[in-house]
Amino acid sequence: MSTDEDFLKVAIGLARDHMEAGHGGPFGAVVVHEGRVIAEGWNQVTSRNDPTAHAEMVALREAAARLNRFSLAGCTLYTSCEPCPMCLAAAYWARIDGLVYAATRADAAAIGFDDDMLYRELALPVSERRLPMRLLLHEEALDVFTAWRDKPDKVPY
Amino acid sequence: MSTDEDFLKVAIGLARDHMEAGHGGPFGAVVVHEGRVIAEGWNQVTSRNDPTAHAEMVALREAAARLNRFSLAGCTLYTSCEPCPMCLAAAYWARIDGLVYAATRADAAAIGFDDDMLYRELALPVSERRLPMRLLLHEEALDVFTAWRDKPDKVPY
Repeated sequence: MSTDEDFLKVAIGLARDHMEAGHGGPFGAVVVHEGRVIAEGWNQVTSRNDPTAHAEMVALREAAARLNRFSLAGCTLYTSCEPCPMCLAAAYWARIDGLVYAATRADAAAIGFDDDMLYRELALPVSERRLPMRLLLHEEALDVFTAWRDKPDKVPY
Repeated sequence: MSTDEDFLKVAIGLARDHMEAGHGGPFGAVVVHEGRVIAEGWNQVTSRNDPTAHAEMVALREAAARLNRFSLAGCTLYTSCEPCPMCLAAAYWARIDGLVYAATRADAAAIGFDDDMLYRELALPVSERRLPMRLLLHEEALDVFTAWRDKPDKVPY
């Protein structure tokens, strides 16, 4: 029977191996379902030119493809580092049961990654963020939401 | 010369068209570079079994692929709804210049989407979140970060 430590070591090993191979930042992740690793991920931002290709995102997408469903209820995410807000929110959207991690956002900040800054930015009111954000056409967008609310055959998620 | 309103209308149109076609939730987005739409996205969570396939994520990934670089500096993201934390953090990672949106997180919550809850969850200390998170093997993970810090040929992002 594998333990949390065993699965987390796989994630850390992926981080090391793919960093050394030049595939991206030093981050690895696995998704476990019913006691087995069903998906592996590692950072591929620079090698794939995909700013969203963090280890956790890659592993979550692969796991959903493997299980052929958009909910990962019943799964656990193991990641070599505390997820950034993008990856943590993705874990919530995926409805995973839990998350096990090794390094922290402060450790990531210490080697030059913006995770900690992003947590602070996201907690700010829209008008106080570094990223300029502008609200327009509110009524037009609401019309689409009303149409969704009234759609009889929608698939909720 | 197209205006912010023009581009945002394209995003809202994508939201409506693909929701009606049953591809996913009522969300659309475009990325604009040098005055032209270079990528379109719409929600595909349920049709593609990908919990990360929000409109903005799809558009950002497509734009990076189109430009063949992991930085979208010089680009603006137009989205039919205020991004959830996953998509907003992705926009930061992508280094976009700015973001224009129409509906708000409160509007999304009113039709059953968890965006507002996610913003609140992410702002909490790890121990107070609904999602159980466990820290293990801290030293082993730090060894990999040290190796990254000292790696002479790394590609920062």
